[in-house]
Amino acid sequence: MPLGERGIDNKGESRYCGVEADFTDDVPRLLSFNLSNGGFDFVVAPLMNPDYRPSLLEKCSDKPRVPPFAGSDLVVNPSRWSSHVVGKISSWIDLDADDPDVQMDSEISLKQEIAWASHLSLQACLLPTPKRASCANYARCVNQILQGLNNMQLWLRVPLVRADNESIDETSGIFTDYWEMWNIFRQLCEHDRKLSVALDVLSSLPSENSIARWYGEPVRAAIVNTNCFLTNARGYPCLSKRHQKLITGFFHHSIQIVISGKPLHEVLKRYSDLDAVQGANNNNGVVSHHLRPYLEYVGYLYQKMDPLPEQEQFELGYRDFLQSPLQPLMDNLEAQTYETFEKDSIKYLQYQRAIAKALMDRVSDENISSTIIVLMVVGAGRGPLVRASLQAAEETGRKLKVYAVEKNPNAIVTLHSLLKLEGWENSVNIVSSDMRHWDAPEKADILVSELLGSFGDNELSPECLDGAQRFLKEDGISIPSSYTSFIQPVTASKLYNDVKLHKDVVHFETAYVVKLHSVARLAPTQPVFTFTHPNRLTNKSNQRFKRLQFQLPTDMGSALVHGFAGYFDAVLYGDVHLGIEPLTATPNMFSWFPIFFPLRTPVCVQSGGSLESMFWRCVGSNKVWYEWCVTSPSPSAIHNSNGRSYWVGL
Amino acid sequence: MPLGERGIDNKGESRYCGVEADFTDDVPRLLSFNLSNGGFDFVVAPLMNPDYRPSLLEKCSDKPRVPPFAGSDLVVNPSRWSSHVVGKISSWIDLDADDPDVQMDSEISLKQEIAWASHLSLQACLLPTPKRASCANYARCVNQILQGLNNMQLWLRVPLVRADNESIDETSGIFTDYWEMWNIFRQLCEHDRKLSVALDVLSSLPSENSIARWYGEPVRAAIVNTNCFLTNARGYPCLSKRHQKLITGFFHHSIQIVISGKPLHEVLKRYSDLDAVQGANNNNGVVSHHLRPYLEYVGYLYQKMDPLPEQEQFELGYRDFLQSPLQPLMDNLEAQTYETFEKDSIKYLQYQRAIAKALMDRVSDENISSTIIVLMVVGAGRGPLVRASLQAAEETGRKLKVYAVEKNPNAIVTLHSLLKLEGWENSVNIVSSDMRHWDAPEKADILVSELLGSFGDNELSPECLDGAQRFLKEDGISIPSSYTSFIQPVTASKLYNDVKLHKDVVHFETAYVVKLHSVARLAPTQPVFTFTHPNRLTNKSNQRFKRLQFQLPTDMGSALVHGFAGYFDAVLYGDVHLGIEPLTATPNMFSWFPIFFPLRTPVCVQSGGSLESMFWRCVGSNKVWYEWCVTSPSPSAIHNSNGRSYWVGL
Repeated sequence: MPLGERGIDNKGESRYCGVEADFTDDVPRLLSFNLSNGGFDFVVAPLMNPDYRPSLLEKCSDKPRVPPFAGSDLVVNPSRWSSHVVGKISSWIDLDADDPDVQMDSEISLKQEIAWASHLSLQACLLPTPKRASCANYARCVNQILQGLNNMQLWLRVPLVRADNESIDETSGIFTDYWEMWNIFRQLCEHDRKLSVALDVLSSLPSENSIARWYGEPVRAAIVNTNCFLTNARGYPCLSKRHQKLITGFFHHSIQIVISGKPLHEVLKRYSDLDAVQGANNNNGVVSHHLRPYLEYVGYLYQKMDPLPEQEQFELGYRDFLQSPLQPLMDNLEAQTYETFEKDSIKYLQYQRAIAKALMDRVSDENISSTIIVLMVVGAGRGPLVRASLQAAEETGRKLKVYAVEKNPNAIVTLHSLLKLEGWENSVNIVSSDMRHWDAPEKADILVSELLGSFGDNELSPECLDGAQRFLKEDGISIPSSYTSFIQPVTASKLYNDVKLHKDVVHFETAYVVKLHSVARLAPTQPVFTFTHPNRLTNKSNQRFKRLQFQLPTDMGSALVHGFAGYFDAVLYGDVHLGIEPLTATPNMFSWFPIFFPLRTPVCVQSGGSLESMFWRCVGSNKVWYEWCVTSPSPSAIHNSNGRSYWVGL
Repeated sequence: MPLGERGIDNKGESRYCGVEADFTDDVPRLLSFNLSNGGFDFVVAPLMNPDYRPSLLEKCSDKPRVPPFAGSDLVVNPSRWSSHVVGKISSWIDLDADDPDVQMDSEISLKQEIAWASHLSLQACLLPTPKRASCANYARCVNQILQGLNNMQLWLRVPLVRADNESIDETSGIFTDYWEMWNIFRQLCEHDRKLSVALDVLSSLPSENSIARWYGEPVRAAIVNTNCFLTNARGYPCLSKRHQKLITGFFHHSIQIVISGKPLHEVLKRYSDLDAVQGANNNNGVVSHHLRPYLEYVGYLYQKMDPLPEQEQFELGYRDFLQSPLQPLMDNLEAQTYETFEKDSIKYLQYQRAIAKALMDRVSDENISSTIIVLMVVGAGRGPLVRASLQAAEETGRKLKVYAVEKNPNAIVTLHSLLKLEGWENSVNIVSSDMRHWDAPEKADILVSELLGSFGDNELSPECLDGAQRFLKEDGISIPSSYTSFIQPVTASKLYNDVKLHKDVVHFETAYVVKLHSVARLAPTQPVFTFTHPNRLTNKSNQRFKRLQFQLPTDMGSALVHGFAGYFDAVLYGDVHLGIEPLTATPNMFSWFPIFFPLRTPVCVQSGGSLESMFWRCVGSNKVWYEWCVTSPSPSAIHNSNGRSYWVGL
């Protein structure tokens, strides 16, 4: 029975728990014992007798040459194989052994077992951890197999061990940071999306930063050994706080749990005693499962999890899904889009607060009755900022004359009908024009706009507001008064592979709006470009160029950078801000997902190392675009030269 | 007048010598002075008045906004501009300056000057050396320009300085190994083939290994400063032995020389005195050129060069030209191909020596008259190895019965006619069959074959000889008795760019036969795969797998690896060998050019670092292929998985 199911509880995706089993050729009993008695959802089981070696079989040429598989598709039907068994590839295989016979046996066996698993339509096979640091021949063979696989996943078993020391123990030739091994292996296999990771969780855990890297990697399962478990007062298995946090982290990232190892707890011994007394059966005449208490504890951890906030549940379908940014200047938004964004009440509340503060600063209490403030909403859409402005005026008792300037003729229709409905005819003037070309009848005290994209200036707010500044009084106020973009390097193997699917450069040179979820943030964000309004410089330019240096945490180990996550923060007025930069993000606001700038070739940053990158904002006669690159530790190409792949039309 | 011209002298490609000049707005005089009086072939001259700054022009808005270029296409016609002028971009430009005004002026000026050079159809422009280690904004701007250029080359001026120290001087932020700067710059510009290098040669030179790297880079010109020159006994300029060797190296790689700087030699002073006496004119009434003695010395060095050997002259057209390897097993060779290869007399002489030795070992002098040796030539082609065998028999007095086995029915026709012409009917039997399937009437004492490709086994000699081994006596001899492939990492930017032109993965996963010339060999070769014949192992396999570790010379500095150069060496018999491995190559043999295995992404190896790579020889049911990868310093993808891009048919 799954720990949780999407749509039934409200904790996101479905979660399953499996169990690792030893070889048996009685697969029906294996399944009934672990699934029915044990309560597990699936079994990770060897497909082949561990004593089998292809070269031995060849020597006994009198016997029929049938490899000793656990059971065929006649004993257990394919749909049951497919939904309940993960094939465990023989753990003796060692393709990089010095002995050429072991090498050859390993290659033959690996290919046989995976071909068999494919025949049974298994969803995944578990590949044993490479036995040595140099594992290129193993990777070569897996890579050859991957070329021919359709849907089956290959999970490379990777121990989750400490990364504090040097990454390869010189004496043993074994990795102490197995992430490095994974990184070599997957690069040799060209980041194939069918190759993923099963983490082996041990009793000692690496640092949090070291663990965090894995959330950007394609981790499908975590194999939790029974020796990770402590014993509670009643003799039952439980986990340390750090292990609990880890398992919860796995739940959050839809990583399936697999219980592995021997039972190590008193309660189980008691179970067993009871079994012995009752002839190995419990009260119901069913053989009790020796690992069931561990499953129950994992289930308990799942139950303890807080349900997802409503907003998060709504956004589940958007997680790690790449979207092209809007082009609201070139294209006209649709009613549905307006409708969605207008629901973001927090955003308009922040605007209302900012406008109220501006009004109070602009008009002292004495002058309330004598002063009428001219406020222009540029990019009025269907009117939410007009409403926020009027509410701010009412709240502060200031008098307002509002102009609602909007270039989308469809939104103008809606605005007119809103005026009638709300009775705003006397205080609001609707202007159907592009703010950059409008010939205003008077100058404004306050210019209110919301032209911000996920990366702040990426929907061309600077160009629009520079154009509108003509009709702002010398001492007039712009809301927002400034905005800044931020970036940070991320591991995001899912996003990288989704971009790579297109097999062209254009998609690697495009920025995407995306609800980041399976992503590892490798360093704190840093500011990129800032724009301030009004901008009274004589030779103003909205071109920008920024060099950024990111330092990876020293206890993280090495990491692979697939690109940059981008955010913005805007100062609306005074101390009222609005933004999605993770540390300072406005809570409960949903109008903006982050932006993602991919890298054509992922860049590996060594443990404790730093990453230098450059971002440019370029302005041409009819478009604005970004270019970006990495210069250190190894230079990338400059992405999106001349905006050849991705640009925003003026 | 060119130093040398292809087809006129016999020293290869044409070589020119240019001169670097200061700004003048009298371009006709500039040309006549430097070309007619000076004898130079071209002038590297500024296109723009060095005092010009775009921002200054804007301020003086009363003047017409025409940038002060040196001269227009009316003063000097475009064909003269194009053939005699390399545009020197303003050396003040500094796109990575902290001052945003300098940045902006630099970007505008760079774009203006290159647009102008393009308008004049110049063949190249010289870009000034970046002023600081961080030069990404310069690279971004050049990269943007490159996207729009058609044919014009941009030569980045790179000082040829020592690489012994750390590569960036931390205090000054300036590179001490400018190769690193070049490497970052060109990677940011995606290895654009229109971006190349002009080396600035100074009085002190880096190590030979450090210089050697540049021969794999796209170096188009070497600017030799007058302060490099020493003074000979008669007061004339001359160069040190090391500088002479460098200039000769440039000649060999068709790198044009440019003389730069002030005259620094007595003889010139005397010239000037003479000029002064004679009113600045020499005897003929022509102004003498102050740098002519330097040109004359460079011309003298050129004259001193040995002419190319005939073979090299013949191969000029093949230099760095990628060819697909032959598939002689799948395809039948054409008469022209046989004809070409049969001209390689050295190769057949080596075979004759090997066969003679084998015959003497096989038949003692006493048994000469009683013993007839059965010798089979497998892959006899049009008979050159039959001839070598008969000549060896004659030379040693041994009696021979020859079978000439050949699968190409067209070659069989030629063989029959050869037999009649030479009167070999009694000693030679022609067999029209694939050696792998021939049912031989008797067993051979000696099996002679030449099935070797540039990489030894790459034309499937192992598979063919394993197939032919059935009809070799238990104690029979195979000539060759073994062969080994070798590789070494190389910088080969020209080859890399030629492969890249195809814009697909397939061409990056193909090995090419190529006469390597503009290539830097970064480490000594290492053996890869060895095959020995006859092979009496019971479970023989021609699959191979080799891990190779290359150490770069410590005084070389960092280098970029574009791929691997491959060679072979074959032991024919005893101490008689045949091969193209550079250190042991058989002289004057021309049947094989090296093979080149490209890398999809070039790998940078740091100064004194090492490169680990893996090569596999894989055998399937109907094809043989190689896979290869780099595992360290940074892992590449495994190339040619399952032989998907490149394979040899069985």
